[in-house]
Amino acid sequence: MNPLSSTAQAAINRSPTLADIAGSVPVTITDREATRQARFQEVGQRPGTLNIRPGALRPRLFLMSYDDTTFTENEYTDHYEDLMAFLHEHPELKHWIDVRGYGDLDLIERMMQDFGLHPLQMEDVLNDYQRAKVEVFDDNRLFMVSRMTDFTADFEIDDDQLSLFTGPNYVLSFQDDYNDCLDSLRTRIRSNFSTLRRHPVLYLAYALTDVVLDHYYPTMAAIGDYIEELEEAIFSPNRPRRLLNRILRIKKDVVRFRRLVYPERDKIAEILRMPEEIMSETLKLFYRDAYDHAIQALDLAESYRDNISSLTDLYMSDQGNRMNEVMKVLTIISTIFIPLSFVVGLYGMNFQRVDEQGHLLPHNMPELYSPWGYPAVLVVMTLVVAMQLFYFYRKGWLTNR
Amino acid sequence: MNPLSSTAQAAINRSPTLADIAGSVPVTITDREATRQARFQEVGQRPGTLNIRPGALRPRLFLMSYDDTTFTENEYTDHYEDLMAFLHEHPELKHWIDVRGYGDLDLIERMMQDFGLHPLQMEDVLNDYQRAKVEVFDDNRLFMVSRMTDFTADFEIDDDQLSLFTGPNYVLSFQDDYNDCLDSLRTRIRSNFSTLRRHPVLYLAYALTDVVLDHYYPTMAAIGDYIEELEEAIFSPNRPRRLLNRILRIKKDVVRFRRLVYPERDKIAEILRMPEEIMSETLKLFYRDAYDHAIQALDLAESYRDNISSLTDLYMSDQGNRMNEVMKVLTIISTIFIPLSFVVGLYGMNFQRVDEQGHLLPHNMPELYSPWGYPAVLVVMTLVVAMQLFYFYRKGWLTNR
Amino acid sequence: MNPLSSTAQAAINRSPTLADIAGSVPVTITDREATRQARFQEVGQRPGTLNIRPGALRPRLFLMSYDDTTFTENEYTDHYEDLMAFLHEHPELKHWIDVRGYGDLDLIERMMQDFGLHPLQMEDVLNDYQRAKVEVFDDNRLFMVSRMTDFTADFEIDDDQLSLFTGPNYVLSFQDDYNDCLDSLRTRIRSNFSTLRRHPVLYLAYALTDVVLDHYYPTMAAIGDYIEELEEAIFSPNRPRRLLNRILRIKKDVVRFRRLVYPERDKIAEILRMPEEIMSETLKLFYRDAYDHAIQALDLAESYRDNISSLTDLYMSDQGNRMNEVMKVLTIISTIFIPLSFVVGLYGMNFQRVDEQGHLLPHNMPELYSPWGYPAVLVVMTLVVAMQLFYFYRKGWLTNR
Amino acid sequence: MNPLSSTAQAAINRSPTLADIAGSVPVTITDREATRQARFQEVGQRPGTLNIRPGALRPRLFLMSYDDTTFTENEYTDHYEDLMAFLHEHPELKHWIDVRGYGDLDLIERMMQDFGLHPLQMEDVLNDYQRAKVEVFDDNRLFMVSRMTDFTADFEIDDDQLSLFTGPNYVLSFQDDYNDCLDSLRTRIRSNFSTLRRHPVLYLAYALTDVVLDHYYPTMAAIGDYIEELEEAIFSPNRPRRLLNRILRIKKDVVRFRRLVYPERDKIAEILRMPEEIMSETLKLFYRDAYDHAIQALDLAESYRDNISSLTDLYMSDQGNRMNEVMKVLTIISTIFIPLSFVVGLYGMNFQRVDEQGHLLPHNMPELYSPWGYPAVLVVMTLVVAMQLFYFYRKGWLTNR
Amino acid sequence: MNPLSSTAQAAINRSPTLADIAGSVPVTITDREATRQARFQEVGQRPGTLNIRPGALRPRLFLMSYDDTTFTENEYTDHYEDLMAFLHEHPELKHWIDVRGYGDLDLIERMMQDFGLHPLQMEDVLNDYQRAKVEVFDDNRLFMVSRMTDFTADFEIDDDQLSLFTGPNYVLSFQDDYNDCLDSLRTRIRSNFSTLRRHPVLYLAYALTDVVLDHYYPTMAAIGDYIEELEEAIFSPNRPRRLLNRILRIKKDVVRFRRLVYPERDKIAEILRMPEEIMSETLKLFYRDAYDHAIQALDLAESYRDNISSLTDLYMSDQGNRMNEVMKVLTIISTIFIPLSFVVGLYGMNFQRVDEQGHLLPHNMPELYSPWGYPAVLVVMTLVVAMQLFYFYRKGWLTNR
Repeated sequence: MNPLSSTAQAAINRSPTLADIAGSVPVTITDREATRQARFQEVGQRPGTLNIRPGALRPRLFLMSYDDTTFTENEYTDHYEDLMAFLHEHPELKHWIDVRGYGDLDLIERMMQDFGLHPLQMEDVLNDYQRAKVEVFDDNRLFMVSRMTDFTADFEIDDDQLSLFTGPNYVLSFQDDYNDCLDSLRTRIRSNFSTLRRHPVLYLAYALTDVVLDHYYPTMAAIGDYIEELEEAIFSPNRPRRLLNRILRIKKDVVRFRRLVYPERDKIAEILRMPEEIMSETLKLFYRDAYDHAIQALDLAESYRDNISSLTDLYMSDQGNRMNEVMKVLTIISTIFIPLSFVVGLYGMNFQRVDEQGHLLPHNMPELYSPWGYPAVLVVMTLVVAMQLFYFYRKGWLTNR
Repeated sequence: MNPLSSTAQAAINRSPTLADIAGSVPVTITDREATRQARFQEVGQRPGTLNIRPGALRPRLFLMSYDDTTFTENEYTDHYEDLMAFLHEHPELKHWIDVRGYGDLDLIERMMQDFGLHPLQMEDVLNDYQRAKVEVFDDNRLFMVSRMTDFTADFEIDDDQLSLFTGPNYVLSFQDDYNDCLDSLRTRIRSNFSTLRRHPVLYLAYALTDVVLDHYYPTMAAIGDYIEELEEAIFSPNRPRRLLNRILRIKKDVVRFRRLVYPERDKIAEILRMPEEIMSETLKLFYRDAYDHAIQALDLAESYRDNISSLTDLYMSDQGNRMNEVMKVLTIISTIFIPLSFVVGLYGMNFQRVDEQGHLLPHNMPELYSPWGYPAVLVVMTLVVAMQLFYFYRKGWLTNR
Repeated sequence: MNPLSSTAQAAINRSPTLADIAGSVPVTITDREATRQARFQEVGQRPGTLNIRPGALRPRLFLMSYDDTTFTENEYTDHYEDLMAFLHEHPELKHWIDVRGYGDLDLIERMMQDFGLHPLQMEDVLNDYQRAKVEVFDDNRLFMVSRMTDFTADFEIDDDQLSLFTGPNYVLSFQDDYNDCLDSLRTRIRSNFSTLRRHPVLYLAYALTDVVLDHYYPTMAAIGDYIEELEEAIFSPNRPRRLLNRILRIKKDVVRFRRLVYPERDKIAEILRMPEEIMSETLKLFYRDAYDHAIQALDLAESYRDNISSLTDLYMSDQGNRMNEVMKVLTIISTIFIPLSFVVGLYGMNFQRVDEQGHLLPHNMPELYSPWGYPAVLVVMTLVVAMQLFYFYRKGWLTNR
Repeated sequence: MNPLSSTAQAAINRSPTLADIAGSVPVTITDREATRQARFQEVGQRPGTLNIRPGALRPRLFLMSYDDTTFTENEYTDHYEDLMAFLHEHPELKHWIDVRGYGDLDLIERMMQDFGLHPLQMEDVLNDYQRAKVEVFDDNRLFMVSRMTDFTADFEIDDDQLSLFTGPNYVLSFQDDYNDCLDSLRTRIRSNFSTLRRHPVLYLAYALTDVVLDHYYPTMAAIGDYIEELEEAIFSPNRPRRLLNRILRIKKDVVRFRRLVYPERDKIAEILRMPEEIMSETLKLFYRDAYDHAIQALDLAESYRDNISSLTDLYMSDQGNRMNEVMKVLTIISTIFIPLSFVVGLYGMNFQRVDEQGHLLPHNMPELYSPWGYPAVLVVMTLVVAMQLFYFYRKGWLTNR
Repeated sequence: MNPLSSTAQAAINRSPTLADIAGSVPVTITDREATRQARFQEVGQRPGTLNIRPGALRPRLFLMSYDDTTFTENEYTDHYEDLMAFLHEHPELKHWIDVRGYGDLDLIERMMQDFGLHPLQMEDVLNDYQRAKVEVFDDNRLFMVSRMTDFTADFEIDDDQLSLFTGPNYVLSFQDDYNDCLDSLRTRIRSNFSTLRRHPVLYLAYALTDVVLDHYYPTMAAIGDYIEELEEAIFSPNRPRRLLNRILRIKKDVVRFRRLVYPERDKIAEILRMPEEIMSETLKLFYRDAYDHAIQALDLAESYRDNISSLTDLYMSDQGNRMNEVMKVLTIISTIFIPLSFVVGLYGMNFQRVDEQGHLLPHNMPELYSPWGYPAVLVVMTLVVAMQLFYFYRKGWLTNR
């Protein structure tokens, strides 16, 4: 019943340490994901063309079937016909058909036909970068897209798409990965006492949306910890290299997170505006709750963004402070020793006491011939230094800032 | 009749001093509260599941019952049945059932049943980070959430949730803490001459909302004082360490305050749009007043935010000024003494007047053999220094900026 | 017929000089007004409670009564009964009852009763920090709040509240101060030829609003002059201390001015939307004109805000330029003299021409024994300096930037 | 047929050169225009009072009368009665009454009466700082205000007001200046083949609006050239003084331009929403085209604003680069010569080889008595310099950035 | 079937290298395109006047005609009559009349007449800087403008206009260039199995819009690569000159891209709101898909803008770091050698051990006569240096940041 992928769980369990930050690979601000996304889109194809991304996983098929009292669960990978047969045999049960992996165009097209899905919808499922949305089709069926987030061990947000189609007695879900964040929901379905099993099948679609939403919070908590760590890193004496990169990178992630959640909120708002015949008032009560959660997640993201922009200010100011400190050291040392060097240079001049003809030149550096000349110079220099130190002390330059 | 918690009162009574700022514990910008909030949310649970936060206080039950002429007040902690009995015995009175602390799931569930509350509502009560909101249920009952703010002795905003359910002749309030900001209202109820006791029970719900709103002002006043203190600190010669952190931290608090008050304003606007049968025109007159207050609080928060961003500018500029001053000292000292050092070095050269063969070399440093050479050099150097000082004076570098 | 308070008039007549800016008292950005405002609000009181602010002035009562042909004017301070008697005797006239000062709760409460005012409205009058607004009460009477601005001799915006109640044949106005900006209107009323006296009494309410609006322009003109002065101050060689404070302070004032005028605009927009039976089309024509003025004032404020933020940029850049200049002086002097000092140091070395045994060491500084050694060194040094000066000249460092 | 005022034309024909920028008078950011505008507004006057600005030009009256086949054109300055007579004699023609200069209050008031204009409208005409707007009066007549822009030889935007009143068979236009940007339109009217003469007279009002709009483009082109020039100036070695002032000044102008055009766009949008009986569908087709032009002008202004804020960034960064370069020169020279100076100072010490008693002190600076001492020191110093130069070279400090 | 112009393809195939960035021509931020655009607009012409831009290409005419089973394709350049004849002979087919190049006003005017186009529309076609838009004319015909983007080898966005007119059985398209991004669509039409040929002719207009939209993605991908390259360039030791210019230039391009796509999105939204009789529900399904794509392109552009503003921050901070490093070198060298120079200067003073009278002056620099004086001074200096190095090491100044 671990609701998080293992790396995210790891990232959350241990707070990231300075060593993590310093040791990990170079961080770029620019978002290769976005570029890849931009590149994947095929240009000029017929809309509704289905492209299987190279490297897509072989689809695994899972089925959970239940009503108030019954529950069965099975994997039908490579046995799609058996799954369809079971569905036809049990129209009285509610079914969750759970497809993970897109790597079989043939299967996808058979499912499109069997479940009455539109090619444009299926294109949205396979083109894995859709914003969250809901569409009504066939009068009262729903096509919903959610985005599941994760915080990776490299301190980046990872997101996957969960696509849902509802039918009279089933929910059909698609996702690209074998692992997901829905295990806690599966456990609830398996439990005989779950109220979920008493609700109509549309509640299952709600529950899936809600679990995805709930999942935003641990992602945010992990980001929050990471931001705190970055703040400490700014003031650490051995500040990691390219720290600002990291700050700006996490800012980018938070901004991206907001851009993920906004459509989610709009999606739920659209559901709340649906007529009674599509979405019952009872279910809307639950979606209203989900709406509040989405807004709270947005508030949190907003708040993190403010934090991070404060971090940028702190970083810049700290950079200035470090420069200031360097300059202060230079100034103190130079200001003390440059005048002293002048004094000692003064008495290193070679003005002659006696000219070539042997005449005494009494005005040329009589100090050099004074019995207490040297000690007097030492005393004078000590006084100068003392005065300067006092001046610096009063300016607060000697204390640490 | 102290409307503020004692720490906030303390924070307001004494203006914070520089010593406070300098001496207090290190301040982080990042908001552990937000992270904690993000983390508390349980993932994948059935919506409407009631989670008692570990460490929640044992609930204390208070009852105030009144009409125009009667008034009784009692604590029913651990005697919930007696409270219910009293309510049933006195349907003619208006009651305020005041629950403080959530630490007894059993009691909470009994109250849900007795007062007809929905699990999703109760989840909102217990999950202590709701935005202010109002919901109508059972046709004309209201569920209202307010956020009570406080300014702690550590110069941070603290906020607690006040949840209200209205019924035909009662208001049921929940909060997490034994101490709150409602004592001034309690005193008004106790008074025989209070107009409050003549109004219908919905007025009590209004009065509770209004007290919470009124309470935003001392919080803001405390923040205002603190901001002034921070401004003085910027220019103080011994500027406290990590002052920018403090500035950015209070900025964060003000932003958070705004985010608290916005939903409050929206809540009241929603009440003002309610139909007559739920909210009477007379009460709306009062809510309109409260609406003005909410907007004024937002104006004030906006104005503080501008102040704080000006403080950031000042801080950055002051940092530049300090650097400038350091550089000026270095430049003045160097510029005066480096040429002098050259001069004295010049006459420290060992060019020989006589070569090994004893020939006179008359071009080699005849100055050294001039009877007034040394005094002349001293005079020249004095003139150079005087010229430089005049140049610096004209540039305005000698005066303090 | 001076439409401005004397200090504002003074601030406008003389353009502020640099001396004004340099000499005046230290300026804080933070806005004690806002804090005071936040603090004044009493917490937990019954809404509608009337609080007389300590130090409020004793109310003075003025009455102007007029129709097309008649005009009388009188002060009724301490003779409230006489005023009421006169009003009852002359229902055919239009009256302006002009109350200045709030310092008599008893009088206030009698007026509330006599003129049918609601406690919540009166609370808004006395709580002197209302945003501009208009409310309809008793079906067709209006309660209007305007904010009168002034630019003080300390270069700050001062604002006072003017509250108006309209009645069938009177306008009742309240303000906190004995002096105001309405004298030009009074003069117009006194004139027998004023069209104002032919309009219905609601026109008087309009005229009061309009005078207040007109008054925003000299305030803005004074701010405009001050901003120009600040710009000159930035580049002045003896820049006043804490100039950035002043810039940010006036920014704050302009922002506050905008926040004053926005509600004024909204108020007029609301009046324009009122039904014919409350506000006649003829009067709306005038309000439409006032609406344009309000928008122009906002445009101007917006434009000043842009100016001031440009000033901040200039200030920061000038700070950088000054630093640059300091560094250039240091670099030029150091770069010229440090190599020269090396050269003279070189020939100050004591390598011996003859060792203890009296052997000649011919490689040890033969230059010192060359007959033209010293002049050659002088020439070399002169060349080095000339080259450096040429380099600096080409870099543009010798010219003033 | 020169559509631009001569100075603007000049500004456009020759691209501004660096010399222009460097040589022209000091530029202030602050906008005296805005202040003057704020000051002109008289305080407390009766709304609708007509104020002739001191220095307003004596009005010149021009009349163009036309239909499909006829065309006459005449100046009626000082012969207003003749003009009115001509109008009455030729009700079958369409007339453009073109008033330039406001300096005759008497004439203005007679025209108000003759053409049925409202004092508030006339006040808008004379108070020369109106935003673009359109008002319907007398059921189907239009009052339109446009703002004509010009780019002066001083690189500032100048704008004048064009006020139009439409009548059954005439357009009455007012402007403050004898020269304007409407000559191209006049030429079109004079042409016998102009479609303009076949359209109803409202088309003339459209054509006037459209010419003003078209005129925004050469203004923008001139600004665009100027911005390019400023960018080059940033990197020029002899950067003009107060360059940032110029950048911020043109920014201000662009922002002001946007504020001029926004109301223009809103005006046209309002015209497009007018009912068929006021504005025919055919004319709306043309206004829709004008609407697109207004939006394109806004886009362009937006784009210039982005450019200018990039210029500010470049300026600041260039300031940093120049500082960097100064520091690099200082650092290279100091770092090379300070250690060398130490070395030569070392061998300038006077430690004695022989004490007063004539004992040899063999540890005191034996180097000075070594036959190859001096050459060795020279070699060591050369090596040190070479190493340092290599270090600087590797750092990239010797190449130009 | 290359969907991109060859230069863009080239720009995409090879990732730009640092050498590209360093070697290419100087980059200006200011956008000559925008200025040229502003200048092209003729002032004061009759709206609807057709201006052929000087240098416009000679029009080439292409025709594709198809239905489910038939397909013919031909070039009719210089044979416009044949094209019209073919159209009249085959009313049963769907036609795409594809005009490339505007350089023949005569042809344009004949087409306007033959296809019933309005002069204002044609002006929009020829004035090549229209925002994307859709207009309904003749009740149900559509006039659509799209903007086709390209990323040039100089790392700039280039955009061309595609204008479409729909008719009962044809689509008439205009563009300025012989090469375009529509080849992939042409290939689809040529294919016998294309579903496109079964749809009504309005689907062709959709397909053209969609291909243009799809084309935004490779443009964005190329920008994304370029941004990554710029980020690496910031930290490269031999940073290219005027790197900030490049960053700000690409920012400008991204902003411009957003300004291109926004109207595209609005255009599609307007199509989605069209009534059934103009736009069928089936086609709207496809446009809804295109709407999602437009929003994703905007998201991507938004995300790139954030990236670039982070790059600006990084650049500024890196500039600060480089300055810091320069200062550190200066400080370390100066701080070590300036005190040493003082020490060696001290013992270079010429205080005499014996005065002119031959008296011993025992206090004058006895160190010079101490047998271990010189070695002692060397040891002291070594210790001083060691201490300083330890101090710098502890400060972290010796390690590379």
